[in-house]
Amino acid sequence: MTFAHRHLLGIEQLSPQDITTILDLAETYVDLNRQSAKHCDVLSGLTQINMFFENSTRTQASFELAGKRLGADVMNMAMQASSIKKGETLIDTAMTLNAMHPDLLVVRHPHSGAVDLLAQKVNCAVLNAGDGRHEHPTQALLDALTIRRAKGRLHRLSIAICGDIAHSRVARSNLLLLGKMENRIRLIGPPTLMPSGIGEFGVEVYDDMRKGLRDVDVVMMLRLQKERMDGGFIPSEREYYHRYGLDAEKLALAKPDAIVMHPGPMNRGVEIDGTLADDINRSVIQEQVEMGVAVRMAAMELLTRPLTTGAAV
Amino acid sequence: MTFAHRHLLGIEQLSPQDITTILDLAETYVDLNRQSAKHCDVLSGLTQINMFFENSTRTQASFELAGKRLGADVMNMAMQASSIKKGETLIDTAMTLNAMHPDLLVVRHPHSGAVDLLAQKVNCAVLNAGDGRHEHPTQALLDALTIRRAKGRLHRLSIAICGDIAHSRVARSNLLLLGKMENRIRLIGPPTLMPSGIGEFGVEVYDDMRKGLRDVDVVMMLRLQKERMDGGFIPSEREYYHRYGLDAEKLALAKPDAIVMHPGPMNRGVEIDGTLADDINRSVIQEQVEMGVAVRMAAMELLTRPLTTGAAV
Amino acid sequence: MTFAHRHLLGIEQLSPQDITTILDLAETYVDLNRQSAKHCDVLSGLTQINMFFENSTRTQASFELAGKRLGADVMNMAMQASSIKKGETLIDTAMTLNAMHPDLLVVRHPHSGAVDLLAQKVNCAVLNAGDGRHEHPTQALLDALTIRRAKGRLHRLSIAICGDIAHSRVARSNLLLLGKMENRIRLIGPPTLMPSGIGEFGVEVYDDMRKGLRDVDVVMMLRLQKERMDGGFIPSEREYYHRYGLDAEKLALAKPDAIVMHPGPMNRGVEIDGTLADDINRSVIQEQVEMGVAVRMAAMELLTRPLTTGAAV
Repeated sequence: MTFAHRHLLGIEQLSPQDITTILDLAETYVDLNRQSAKHCDVLSGLTQINMFFENSTRTQASFELAGKRLGADVMNMAMQASSIKKGETLIDTAMTLNAMHPDLLVVRHPHSGAVDLLAQKVNCAVLNAGDGRHEHPTQALLDALTIRRAKGRLHRLSIAICGDIAHSRVARSNLLLLGKMENRIRLIGPPTLMPSGIGEFGVEVYDDMRKGLRDVDVVMMLRLQKERMDGGFIPSEREYYHRYGLDAEKLALAKPDAIVMHPGPMNRGVEIDGTLADDINRSVIQEQVEMGVAVRMAAMELLTRPLTTGAAV
Repeated sequence: MTFAHRHLLGIEQLSPQDITTILDLAETYVDLNRQSAKHCDVLSGLTQINMFFENSTRTQASFELAGKRLGADVMNMAMQASSIKKGETLIDTAMTLNAMHPDLLVVRHPHSGAVDLLAQKVNCAVLNAGDGRHEHPTQALLDALTIRRAKGRLHRLSIAICGDIAHSRVARSNLLLLGKMENRIRLIGPPTLMPSGIGEFGVEVYDDMRKGLRDVDVVMMLRLQKERMDGGFIPSEREYYHRYGLDAEKLALAKPDAIVMHPGPMNRGVEIDGTLADDINRSVIQEQVEMGVAVRMAAMELLTRPLTTGAAV
Repeated sequence: MTFAHRHLLGIEQLSPQDITTILDLAETYVDLNRQSAKHCDVLSGLTQINMFFENSTRTQASFELAGKRLGADVMNMAMQASSIKKGETLIDTAMTLNAMHPDLLVVRHPHSGAVDLLAQKVNCAVLNAGDGRHEHPTQALLDALTIRRAKGRLHRLSIAICGDIAHSRVARSNLLLLGKMENRIRLIGPPTLMPSGIGEFGVEVYDDMRKGLRDVDVVMMLRLQKERMDGGFIPSEREYYHRYGLDAEKLALAKPDAIVMHPGPMNRGVEIDGTLADDINRSVIQEQVEMGVAVRMAAMELLTRPLTTGAAV
């Protein structure tokens, strides 16, 4: 396996081969994590620092467990948004941590591009754990692994991404990854939550769930990012659920074996019916979380291996 | 030693033999913790997650150190009460962590029964670190170990539990444990802080410290749980100390070698005289803390051993 | 190397030989930290607890990484100032943690002398990570190591400490250390931020940067501790920068190879010009951070070694 990247900043920089390399390695960590003793020495003696400028219980936990199971020394930094008002201060903070010789920096930041900027300044590998509306690459990778395991392949699938597309870095990273792997993508959501000009990207756009879900293999729901809606049309939760929430009746229009996904945390009764979310015959939501730890372990292993080529991004 | 439980949810489910098994194993950890290098590999490769929905510096620290000294990968989750408004969300959070394959979940929650509910949903061992007014089993076990070491036995002792009985999960778990081990228990406190109908449980109830403490072997003080008093009679601190606070004069009514206990943190001058609390000839309060780490190490070891029988609670 | 101290409470208690012992050992950790696998077993099986009663992202991170790289079990305690209103409670908290058998307590506290008090009560080694306006010994040690590496020696240097001297434990510990090593020290700052009677300590005092910086080898800037100024003259930031902020023009008065230091976090444009702070030909600010981890590793190793003499402070 070759993987000639120094950082994991986004899906945009990855080739289909890179994606396959990460997913194949992640499979071995799925197996490890299901064992009783789930610990190895791949990152032994290395230092991982988690810098979360936005709270995220589940993503931070996933990265923390991934690092600890790989044997790294893991440190969490609680970066209060209040102390980080200026871009300058972000860089000063990063440079300070950089001087302590970490090997891996895992960074979440509310501003798009902040993680790329930081990666240019430090000497170590940087993993983007979500930056603004830009990218969330490990989420797209864990979704890809979940799909590949459920469907037996990651290409020529018909996949619907539903909901608040405009504010979602999850949607953006998934769109990039699933496109690179040659799938057929439909975006479904209210026009006010759809990025302008998205139709040019070779995707089909729907504002009617019943039309958009017809015959798809995968239904990927998004969290309604209320906190990111600045002005514009905010639908009522009841109205939103009626038109865009996934329930058994709408799902019946997809293929009989279509799987249901959600990045969590769910707003039950808003984006998705609670019973459907818990239906282990259709929902792979818990498996997405499981794949998350494995994908992050794989990405961290690949980023800390000595580079075999001179190229690096 | 046999111990056929999957979870440690409360003293209620334990037999006297179970209690003895935990305490005997804990003794070995008391010795380990007093050494310079106090680390072993009993939980090596296993993952422990501490989910504290109530703040508790000392109990969380005790569980964290216990897990780290056993070689586990330990992760603390700061669960803000604010994000956990619905029971549904508690379960979603637990299921998300469960999908990351922890081996041990240590849970504190403000609602009685919340930890039992959670234990039914997850695949791993759950330890109750205190739920509402219900149970706090490791506190009762550490108290038991402290008593056994000070008195040379854990049966046929006369033990007074004093103070805010009604709001105390510590009192409830101790009552269950000390009862199972065939001790004579007295409850002392103002009638307004005494659960109704408690006299039926085979305990003696007093509202006069001077009568209740007469000839007891153990005086177990409780923290005044002001935050749990919802309405009802709240005594002034001065009045409370005068009538129910432990001082040298009241203690003189107990046996000459009676020991003084408190689960901490103490309100000095409210429940207990500060000088008495620090008197190493009478007070075993620091030893209780020490026993806490050892008892938790023992419980975690027993819960992660392969079950030898089919039975599990 | 002999080092017969039980605690590291301040520079005041250290001899020149002690200081050299710490710095020499720290050099080996500078090398270790620059390697890929930066982990050893010097503190394996030992327990380190970080008790920070004041927030300090960088200092706590430095101690945490130091301990983890030495193989210790490290636990961070978030000590909210709110729960620590009485000195009594500080001691109760410390005694509780002490009963859990830590080997090292790293303590930061807003009150001068609080760490010394705590050290008298516990059984383990205590490291002062900053107490009020009193001492911050590891900061002075990391500054000393940075100077020694940049200048090739740590004696007979002319060193200017600039800014808010009166409120700074960093200044106080540096003054003690650099004095013990027989350097010539100048203090530069507005008279209102200069401790009274400081001239008696054998230092030169200036209120004019242009005079004070003339021909110095080292320019040590201090953070403007606005939060510590209780009443008195608070200069405007613009006025302060004009008179006491370090810029290229003022620095030109120092020796041509003079180095620029700052303990961080910097107020760019207040104490120091941002461009100058980033000038790797003059500024050693990032190296100070790097030396911090190494110096703390050395101090922790020395404090946990069995004492070779009976003497201990």
